[in-house]
Amino acid sequence: MGALRESPTRRIDAIRERLKRENRDIIVLSAGQPSIPPPPEIRAMMAEELAKESMDLYAYTPSQGIIELREAVAEDLKRLGSLDVKPDDIVITAGGQEAMFATLMTILNPGDEVILMDPTYFGYKPIIEYFGGKIKRLRLSMDDGFRINVESLKELVSDKTKAVIVVTPDNPTGSIIDEETAKAIADLAKDKDFWIISDEAYRTLIYEGNHVYMYKYAPDNVISLNTFSKDPGIPGWRLGFIYGPREVISKVKLAGEEMTYCPPSFAQRFVAVYLRSQVRLKHIRYVVEQYRAKRDVAVNAIKASLPEARFTVPKGSMFIFVDLANYIDDGEKFAEYAMEKYSVAVVPGSYFSEQYRAAVRVSFVWESTNRLVEGIKRLAEAAKAYRGSGLVNVL
Amino acid sequence: MGALRESPTRRIDAIRERLKRENRDIIVLSAGQPSIPPPPEIRAMMAEELAKESMDLYAYTPSQGIIELREAVAEDLKRLGSLDVKPDDIVITAGGQEAMFATLMTILNPGDEVILMDPTYFGYKPIIEYFGGKIKRLRLSMDDGFRINVESLKELVSDKTKAVIVVTPDNPTGSIIDEETAKAIADLAKDKDFWIISDEAYRTLIYEGNHVYMYKYAPDNVISLNTFSKDPGIPGWRLGFIYGPREVISKVKLAGEEMTYCPPSFAQRFVAVYLRSQVRLKHIRYVVEQYRAKRDVAVNAIKASLPEARFTVPKGSMFIFVDLANYIDDGEKFAEYAMEKYSVAVVPGSYFSEQYRAAVRVSFVWESTNRLVEGIKRLAEAAKAYRGSGLVNVL
Repeated sequence: MGALRESPTRRIDAIRERLKRENRDIIVLSAGQPSIPPPPEIRAMMAEELAKESMDLYAYTPSQGIIELREAVAEDLKRLGSLDVKPDDIVITAGGQEAMFATLMTILNPGDEVILMDPTYFGYKPIIEYFGGKIKRLRLSMDDGFRINVESLKELVSDKTKAVIVVTPDNPTGSIIDEETAKAIADLAKDKDFWIISDEAYRTLIYEGNHVYMYKYAPDNVISLNTFSKDPGIPGWRLGFIYGPREVISKVKLAGEEMTYCPPSFAQRFVAVYLRSQVRLKHIRYVVEQYRAKRDVAVNAIKASLPEARFTVPKGSMFIFVDLANYIDDGEKFAEYAMEKYSVAVVPGSYFSEQYRAAVRVSFVWESTNRLVEGIKRLAEAAKAYRGSGLVNVL
Repeated sequence: MGALRESPTRRIDAIRERLKRENRDIIVLSAGQPSIPPPPEIRAMMAEELAKESMDLYAYTPSQGIIELREAVAEDLKRLGSLDVKPDDIVITAGGQEAMFATLMTILNPGDEVILMDPTYFGYKPIIEYFGGKIKRLRLSMDDGFRINVESLKELVSDKTKAVIVVTPDNPTGSIIDEETAKAIADLAKDKDFWIISDEAYRTLIYEGNHVYMYKYAPDNVISLNTFSKDPGIPGWRLGFIYGPREVISKVKLAGEEMTYCPPSFAQRFVAVYLRSQVRLKHIRYVVEQYRAKRDVAVNAIKASLPEARFTVPKGSMFIFVDLANYIDDGEKFAEYAMEKYSVAVVPGSYFSEQYRAAVRVSFVWESTNRLVEGIKRLAEAAKAYRGSGLVNVL
């Protein structure tokens, strides 16, 4: 249990909750969740289901998930990614978090090495450490758009490498992998016999380019982790899925059975209806359009208010990873300062990276456009005040 | 991962699913879930919530659970059990299963001993073994109503005893602990410094007597595991809670955060409304009345059809634990035989007990009264045919 600490964003949330109780109006650029609820048509259908006098909606489901949902997911992967995944090679989970935990519980033994990008999503580190895994970091650079250099990756791979984790579109950088790099990593995984854990949480939130399905290039080596938190937008309901080689899927299913017995049934039925409905593709298009517009607003606001900030324009996800090294020395202290003094919440870059310690993650989807612009202005004021505050020396 | 096997009831479910696909009408006396959906008033309120254009119903919640629900649980424990439990000493979980896993993950170290009753709920064994714990069994006897003999318990306690697990009302026996025994176990726990894991899943489903809250007698030593699966009857939605010493609760919260990030939000809001509603006590009374009537029907049917069967009349829960040693030799083989040949599903006693290997667990709540009686008749026919089938010798 020593490895388990409060999630970094939870700390930011806790300060935010306290300030909220003090009636402070915080502009939330720290959220890792969508702002658009699922399509009203599907919600209306589920409301009708709630009126029925039957246990159908309330009973346990198979621990692998209901067959209707697994079939709908298989159809969806076929339609969006031209993938051939059988419903039996899919296990539904209680969100992306259970997908991560159950997968690492299944494949990791103490001493195994796992390669994580830097920066990348912070959720993997504590779980890897809990299971006794050793993390090796592959440093990516903003200068070339956080591209994975496969030669550098090769140098990190050893006999102990159990898995390489690839988040694409990435959280926090919004970068997406290209076909060539994906194929090279897949070849390396086959050659050196390690797992690629392909985190596809943001695969439908892409503003430029296309999502690359790693599974295409190494179906025997890829375990793909997915969530319905971002699309259709039910983060609190806890639903996700994993697809991959059946041998792993059946073990992950057993892990999930011990952890939560079955994935939440109401959410399963909801998403099974959603994925097969007419509104599904329309909803994604609508959400992507809305979020792309907000992204562009955020990009322009950062350029205007923080001219010395460095960032790449995200091709996917909900985030801009902003390096403020020209303004501040420490993203963690700055994030607390900005929230306490300027009522704007961001997530420190150090939660994602050992190298970008003066960066912050800005979510551009949660707040309205006006508040997003206002939040970035406040961030700029905070950065300038922080620089001149003497706090840098004190800390 | 070697410790993890498919849940025993899942095996029974799998055979049942196969026979269902063959259009066989199976009478299900194997279910571990209620047959009465939650109150229609609460369902109607949640249907209205689904119409709102807001992320409130969909967003992540604090990993400990929303404060409204933790407050409602504290009030409910006060009302039903006269307990003083602070909302901060409660953590909401993704069902009783996550409560079990997260608790054992928090307290167990390899080599620790855990004392389990025999018979008792089968869900603990694989998790204890997964975390490297060693199980010691305290044999309870049907002859004295499965009462826990505290002197015998004392003999099993050693320096390595980390926890004693007490399920009351018990699954599968339906026995409930008495105040005197509860107090003696509490004193022993304080004296020998071990945890009492008090599983209160069925605490509101009591037909004779009262639920005894172990927490009353040893608040510093009791970790209480609870579920909303049985009351208000949302097993598939995955919601439960734990209360106990704050130091443990805060660690269990971290475990849950890594496992599932937060408990399902829709279910949290649903139950928060339910617990504080006018219909809450009315609903329990109604459910208990219905289930008690079914229990009595089942008891009479067993007496009539299986006169040589031995059982105690359950004071709580949903189950009758029926010893068929006068008819059969092996509950596991018999359960498969009864399902395949007589289309009635029960759970083998060996899943709960090392001593009652010719027993079965009969759920009296899932099927209608008519089908319950018919199912028990089929069970009797199966038992007699099994005895005369020659299968006994073959196996």
